[in-house]
Amino acid sequence: MRLIVPLQGVVQGRGGLILGSFIPCTLFYLLQLYLKRNRRPPTHLDPTPSTTDLTRTSSRSSLGPVQVSLRAESIANPNPSAYYVGWSKYLEDPYDRLANPDGIIQLGLSENRLSFDLIEKWMVDNLESVMVGGVGGISRIDEMLLYQPSDGMLEMKKAMANFMSLVMRTTTPFNPSHLVLTSGATAAIEMLSFCLADQGNGLLVPTPYYPGFDRDVIWRAGVELIHVHCCSSDNFSPSIDAFEQAYRNARRHGIKVRGVLISNPSNPVGNILSKEFLYSLLDFAKNKNIHIISDEIYAGSVYGDEEFVSMAEIVGSTDTDKQRVHIVYGISKDLSLPGFRIGVVHSFNETVLTATKRLARFTTVSSPTQRIMISMLSDSSFIEEYMMTNKDRLKKMHQLLVSSLRLSGIKCNESTAGFYCWVDIRHLLGSSSEKGELELWHNLLNVAKINTTPGTSCHCVEPGWFRCCFANLDEGDIPVILDRILRVVNL
Amino acid sequence: MRLIVPLQGVVQGRGGLILGSFIPCTLFYLLQLYLKRNRRPPTHLDPTPSTTDLTRTSSRSSLGPVQVSLRAESIANPNPSAYYVGWSKYLEDPYDRLANPDGIIQLGLSENRLSFDLIEKWMVDNLESVMVGGVGGISRIDEMLLYQPSDGMLEMKKAMANFMSLVMRTTTPFNPSHLVLTSGATAAIEMLSFCLADQGNGLLVPTPYYPGFDRDVIWRAGVELIHVHCCSSDNFSPSIDAFEQAYRNARRHGIKVRGVLISNPSNPVGNILSKEFLYSLLDFAKNKNIHIISDEIYAGSVYGDEEFVSMAEIVGSTDTDKQRVHIVYGISKDLSLPGFRIGVVHSFNETVLTATKRLARFTTVSSPTQRIMISMLSDSSFIEEYMMTNKDRLKKMHQLLVSSLRLSGIKCNESTAGFYCWVDIRHLLGSSSEKGELELWHNLLNVAKINTTPGTSCHCVEPGWFRCCFANLDEGDIPVILDRILRVVNL
Repeated sequence: MRLIVPLQGVVQGRGGLILGSFIPCTLFYLLQLYLKRNRRPPTHLDPTPSTTDLTRTSSRSSLGPVQVSLRAESIANPNPSAYYVGWSKYLEDPYDRLANPDGIIQLGLSENRLSFDLIEKWMVDNLESVMVGGVGGISRIDEMLLYQPSDGMLEMKKAMANFMSLVMRTTTPFNPSHLVLTSGATAAIEMLSFCLADQGNGLLVPTPYYPGFDRDVIWRAGVELIHVHCCSSDNFSPSIDAFEQAYRNARRHGIKVRGVLISNPSNPVGNILSKEFLYSLLDFAKNKNIHIISDEIYAGSVYGDEEFVSMAEIVGSTDTDKQRVHIVYGISKDLSLPGFRIGVVHSFNETVLTATKRLARFTTVSSPTQRIMISMLSDSSFIEEYMMTNKDRLKKMHQLLVSSLRLSGIKCNESTAGFYCWVDIRHLLGSSSEKGELELWHNLLNVAKINTTPGTSCHCVEPGWFRCCFANLDEGDIPVILDRILRVVNL
Repeated sequence: MRLIVPLQGVVQGRGGLILGSFIPCTLFYLLQLYLKRNRRPPTHLDPTPSTTDLTRTSSRSSLGPVQVSLRAESIANPNPSAYYVGWSKYLEDPYDRLANPDGIIQLGLSENRLSFDLIEKWMVDNLESVMVGGVGGISRIDEMLLYQPSDGMLEMKKAMANFMSLVMRTTTPFNPSHLVLTSGATAAIEMLSFCLADQGNGLLVPTPYYPGFDRDVIWRAGVELIHVHCCSSDNFSPSIDAFEQAYRNARRHGIKVRGVLISNPSNPVGNILSKEFLYSLLDFAKNKNIHIISDEIYAGSVYGDEEFVSMAEIVGSTDTDKQRVHIVYGISKDLSLPGFRIGVVHSFNETVLTATKRLARFTTVSSPTQRIMISMLSDSSFIEEYMMTNKDRLKKMHQLLVSSLRLSGIKCNESTAGFYCWVDIRHLLGSSSEKGELELWHNLLNVAKINTTPGTSCHCVEPGWFRCCFANLDEGDIPVILDRILRVVNL
């Protein structure tokens, strides 16, 4: 297809048609001639092997280091993205207020430590009884050790559905039978990409977006991400016009668009998509007859006044609407438990559910971990207290960082959810370009010793925006960060 | 390639060359003509959208239920394999000596309950201190909750490498830096298939083989399994001649062979590959310059007198040999902990290690589970006692089933490891064919109410062999099984 269509594009009409046939014909003839000349000798087709044959096989003639697959080679290639380079650098010299005060401060990793004490206390109070204690101890151990459904224990799905209904405040509660558990939301996004789009198909994604999407969608599933550009003038909120334009561009390049991938609340910007926009997006998807994947992993980390609305709330009651909406969730963010590796696919689509349930065999959550989570999620007074306190602490730390930065003349984009400030340091760029942005990022990392995520890692079209995680900070870290930024400002 | 080569095969010489070019030329012309006639109108290429455009998009004209990917549809299709049908049937009516004595007895699932009491005791004695107790309690909780390396904690890799060295008795201990943890061995096989072969490439696999390989290799990675047939006359051991023949056949069909996949000890047959055979297999792989994936998940479940030799022991000291050998292991079988979902890729190949470490993000083992396993694997007196007792119990139960079946005139293939009897009931077939075998399987399931795995699910070429798991049985179950088999014999 890709060979033919461009030829038609170059020469229109009958000329293009003939030329479009003649060129591949000639190539075919030359290829055949080459293959004929380089064919293996017919002796190799004999059914019984002989020692002479073995020493003559064509593979033997090309001996060298054994080759791995092209896709593995591509994945193993050094990843030059600042997102990953910054992480590696941080791991070599991590900041610690007491033990390593000159180390690198990590603002690039999405981890929430603000309410760690609450989780820790729950664990200390409950782990023993969850794992072995009580009358049900023995039967629970039995359940922990042996095979369980790959897509999650029923009890776990029920607990997760209840938690999601609480967090997302949906009118209709989530149904456990629509859930598939995965080893983290990363695996859920990867699995949905695989199931909704074939290799080479595309998903529309508003920029700036979470750098991990490139890994989750492209690496294994081989699906392309088609950028829908958003601008600072709109507070980086996407518009349907931008979706339309990106859709048309993709089609023009011969890419079949199979869906839309949004993160709501947005990572990295921290804003929330309005109800009105979500309705328009569903209309857009209906119009194009494509899917919507809504990554709502920060749904319970809204600290602002705006109300979060889940895409599950937006889908109509008709079956054709429901079939196209798929939600990704997990406990890594809202419950600060990334080490537990629990993600969720929620779908109304029976084919997607059947396929993801089967594929979950490759990404099953271990039973002891499910056992702990069933207990924690069922402890409604703890969950309620945790969610409230955590939001308060997120709000406080966010305000603290934003106001402190403002005092240094640095503004942040307005945000209402998630763990990030989307920081505007365009005025500090040497040149307003990707190069200028990466130079600043490099100085922040190596001179100020702060690891941030530059906008270019999130495919932001405007240079000078940086994602900075505040949820893993201590109040005492903020003056240190500001002091260090000054090192770069005065360069 | 596939289009061209057959044409050369049909008509040799210059005739084939011209015909081989003429036919694709004509097809190209017709395809171009078709595409030209069915092209979208040029208005859709305009950069600015209008409402009129939107209502005219080609997707709108073909509205209907939204489509999922072809690969998801294929995975979601009903799976008619007796292996999966038997499981579903069992789950509807599972046998329980007291609660449901007329239920279906499960001989189709590879679960070891013979030493369950030992594991259970260890858990009761140790879980509390592992999870929360002691001086290190708090720091361990911290480690459990937050992000850890996707490919496994270093401490876990060290414990696993030690355990593998103990189980496989290798001269050189396994190196933790060559390990990548995955969510079960299933994911490890899938990941290696993806990394060693590209879509449409092939792996040679001796039959009969574990039915799950079809899922693990074909579903996601899109790699073909090329059968290397083994016969009862050789105790179902593979020969290098059979590998050579299968390799040549694959090449003749245009399939690029990238490696060999063996399970050693064999699932379903239960035999062990000899040291001599493994050396020959490495020579074969060197000669073809391809990989070897050795699934050694039953390495610690050898109850017979033969000695198990790991493929890791066979690889020479040269780098080119090491680069092609990859080992799959896990704790689901040898430690009877399938619910923990811990598998391992062991590779000496740096590119494979880098790629699998990155891909492990989609299949990470949760930290609490790793924490438990680090403690259990480090408890060397427990591990030693468990391994010894478990082997004794496997041996005893195997002998009991084999001798009881023999009294009923049913023989088993000689075996020395694993959880299965490979049972020869050819004399009970109505007809010596796949159909006859499936009829017998159906009667065993529905009349005798025993779920077995028929040889055809393992791609065995000889009808009449059945895989029966004995490791989840109680001694008291055996007379019940024999009684029930009589129901079918007398049909």
